[in-house]
Amino acid sequence: MSSKGFFITLEGNEGCGKSTQLRLLRDDLRRAGHNVLVTREPGGTRAGDAIRAVLLDRKQARMNATCETLLYMASRAQLAAEVIRPALKARRTVLCDRWVDATYAYQGFGGGVDRAWIRRLGLEATGGLEPDITLWLDLPLEAGLRRAAGRGPKDRVESKTLAYHRRVRRGYEDLARRQPRRFRRVRLNASDSIEAVRAKVREALSDVL
Amino acid sequence: MSSKGFFITLEGNEGCGKSTQLRLLRDDLRRAGHNVLVTREPGGTRAGDAIRAVLLDRKQARMNATCETLLYMASRAQLAAEVIRPALKARRTVLCDRWVDATYAYQGFGGGVDRAWIRRLGLEATGGLEPDITLWLDLPLEAGLRRAAGRGPKDRVESKTLAYHRRVRRGYEDLARRQPRRFRRVRLNASDSIEAVRAKVREALSDVL
Repeated sequence: MSSKGFFITLEGNEGCGKSTQLRLLRDDLRRAGHNVLVTREPGGTRAGDAIRAVLLDRKQARMNATCETLLYMASRAQLAAEVIRPALKARRTVLCDRWVDATYAYQGFGGGVDRAWIRRLGLEATGGLEPDITLWLDLPLEAGLRRAAGRGPKDRVESKTLAYHRRVRRGYEDLARRQPRRFRRVRLNASDSIEAVRAKVREALSDVL
Repeated sequence: MSSKGFFITLEGNEGCGKSTQLRLLRDDLRRAGHNVLVTREPGGTRAGDAIRAVLLDRKQARMNATCETLLYMASRAQLAAEVIRPALKARRTVLCDRWVDATYAYQGFGGGVDRAWIRRLGLEATGGLEPDITLWLDLPLEAGLRRAAGRGPKDRVESKTLAYHRRVRRGYEDLARRQPRRFRRVRLNASDSIEAVRAKVREALSDVL
């Protein structure tokens, strides 16, 4: 942390509250003196935004999970080089909505793509860039999907089956088991208020905040 | 060739005459009794066409060569699974405008991306699908770029520097040296008529036609 910035990512199933908590966490980090950059993927660059539009387009019903994996990695390669590495070099704290763990959970566990390949490809695409800390907002699945459905028309990812989303969640469980230091589970209840979740997020990051 | 179809790809620098020769070769193969499917990449599927639009968009000036590589591979993964493998399984002859060799030449030699990685990724993205024969339409570089320029506004690839296109050509030379049986150089002159090129293409494929 002394010679470069700090890289924090947020993960979770659909409707887990990532976007809201990302904004609150940005504010909390700033108050604690961090120079924060917030970004997301897929997206965060011109190329990434164009790739995001392809990935979320419901007309892309036939797109297979290998194609999806490579598209997410393409967006990530651009975001790492153009945005995240320069910010870390300038000793900023980068807060990113999703990273390679999402492809591991969604395309790997959800879509059946080889998981070892996804992890290797993640390192190759980003030049070995890995988060210092990842927060997994673990809201019960049904509550998250209900919340996502309340937002209006579903995109291509939100339209996947419940069985798919269950497999994704198992992917995050797998990561929490394998890398408990980096990949930190934040257990949420459907009844938690936004402020209650915020407090849990702060607690999970007590060594940084 | 007995248990599956035949996979032929065409390669070359900008303006080498690939599109025209692809149509003529399709006709010649049909006349020789082949059940031919013609396709191209990036593109050839709904996902591939959307990816193609991103790759050729001149507004994507900052897109790096790793991102490009992964986008081409994404399009290829979809094309292999959705179009080429089913056609080969049905014993058709597939004629494809570009394949992994193009990424090897353009992003590898042109853009400086690790070439061993490109070859490995090509196999991983397509499930090990490789052309039976590749024809390299080797027209002198300046003649090809003049011809491409005559078509109207340049796309993002055509807009690269002359030095870039020279490196691409060296990539194709490298392939012709490494895999002379599969990767067949068809030497063209700027003064060759369309029919003269067609005759050279037929000659390079005399074992198939």
